[in-house]
Amino acid sequence: MRFLAYFGHLNIDVLISVDSIPREGSVNVKDLRPRFGGTAGNFAIVAQKFRIPFDLYSAVGMKTHREYLAMIESMGINTGHVEKFEDESGPICYIATDGKKQVSFMHQGAMEKWKPQLADEYEYVHFSTGPNYLDMAKSIRSKIIFDPSQEIHKYSKDELKKFHEISYMSIFNDHEYRVFREMTGLSSPKVTTIVTNGERGSSLFMDGKKYDFPAIPSSGDTVGAGDSFRAGLYLALYNRRSIEKGMIYGTIIAHHVIDDGIENFSLNMEDLERETENYRRMFTKRS
Amino acid sequence: MRFLAYFGHLNIDVLISVDSIPREGSVNVKDLRPRFGGTAGNFAIVAQKFRIPFDLYSAVGMKTHREYLAMIESMGINTGHVEKFEDESGPICYIATDGKKQVSFMHQGAMEKWKPQLADEYEYVHFSTGPNYLDMAKSIRSKIIFDPSQEIHKYSKDELKKFHEISYMSIFNDHEYRVFREMTGLSSPKVTTIVTNGERGSSLFMDGKKYDFPAIPSSGDTVGAGDSFRAGLYLALYNRRSIEKGMIYGTIIAHHVIDDGIENFSLNMEDLERETENYRRMFTKRS
Repeated sequence: MRFLAYFGHLNIDVLISVDSIPREGSVNVKDLRPRFGGTAGNFAIVAQKFRIPFDLYSAVGMKTHREYLAMIESMGINTGHVEKFEDESGPICYIATDGKKQVSFMHQGAMEKWKPQLADEYEYVHFSTGPNYLDMAKSIRSKIIFDPSQEIHKYSKDELKKFHEISYMSIFNDHEYRVFREMTGLSSPKVTTIVTNGERGSSLFMDGKKYDFPAIPSSGDTVGAGDSFRAGLYLALYNRRSIEKGMIYGTIIAHHVIDDGIENFSLNMEDLERETENYRRMFTKRS
Repeated sequence: MRFLAYFGHLNIDVLISVDSIPREGSVNVKDLRPRFGGTAGNFAIVAQKFRIPFDLYSAVGMKTHREYLAMIESMGINTGHVEKFEDESGPICYIATDGKKQVSFMHQGAMEKWKPQLADEYEYVHFSTGPNYLDMAKSIRSKIIFDPSQEIHKYSKDELKKFHEISYMSIFNDHEYRVFREMTGLSSPKVTTIVTNGERGSSLFMDGKKYDFPAIPSSGDTVGAGDSFRAGLYLALYNRRSIEKGMIYGTIIAHHVIDDGIENFSLNMEDLERETENYRRMFTKRS
């Protein structure tokens, strides 16, 4: 049995910086910057640096993703379970920004054509963004992590409830957790649940208790921080450590990803363990 | 001496169709369609089909243009004078459209880095969009075609006048011709000048006379029609025919490009000559 299957997006963001986004007409681009990311991509880039064994499950259009795949393959990430659509493009998001406001044009492309199938047996199967995974989740015996992220609205009320109940663990950010409770009517989680809350840290709901993990003050681009937090979680699970330890690993890794940027992230195990001990001394208390 | 050097853009348009362009926030893309075009690209694709010998002068960023170059090279178009910037992207234009309005984000990229140089001797040198070509134009003995297109504002009043005066022929559309006269104070052209006017046809100012060439009613995407008109012009010049004949060739070719789309354009010489005679009988008179 393999350790982890991770379902999500290998999304390309095309960051289009302009002086001011017009209502109509043409504007010159000051800076154009593609960023290889997405829920599964960001996770993979960080998890690979810690040698966590995982299989990526996703779909890409080769019209836009040749370079992206080459980049992650050069890092040793296996793309054998990434379905490659030759005549498709995406998932790709064109983000026009003028520093004040942002308009994003999201093209799912290949992700809308994809019919995902699990090709092996895994201890953990992580369902993040992408198609509705519920039927697949119901049919497998792995520990399921339900992590709908910004696509939580894709699930109906009953589907949300069902997916949560059959999951080994669910993950939301604070906005999604509010949506989850409003839609399902549940006032508290029925299974172990993590709620991330950006600079206000994260909470772990487990065995009827709530554990808070303050964030470490960071400054920089928060893109990919949530996905890298999840890499910390699996680092702990893979090394048979506690989920609490995973929360601390995740908090520290997210901090470094925000400060250094996901491409430059390079924290090694030794430093991570040292910072984990510092974090424990400073922060952890049960609430 | 070679026949023609053609300076302009190998621009990629990324057409992003959405239901409605938001002022802010995210919207799903209904259809994503890259289009390989630009002033020099559209011209080359049509001119190549008529075996007109020309050299393309342009600049591209290989981060975005690998597929575009492969496409035109597969058509037999020589890209030896296209400067390829490995770490650049563009020229590329992201065009968000919801059918009612359009917002275009134009990234010049490689075209802003390019320092164009003529690498051979040519009978005609056509200066369309790109950097300010005036100094180069002043230093060469070829027949210069001044065709600033939508970048006419790049030239000062004196530069416009100078470039026009040293040109063998100038080309404007009706809007650009108004800008040209307003900026230079010239009430009529000082050299042979073509003014294109979309569905209202085109006019040739030559030897103090004005010749009108009505457009042939067409229905379809007009993108690239102007550039393909120019291919008709050079088809006549290359075959030592009159400029008037070039106007008719251009009018007929533009008509077919609008009706069939530039990718599917396939008019052969025989049909073109037959339609040219029909056109002559129906339309040409001196005003």
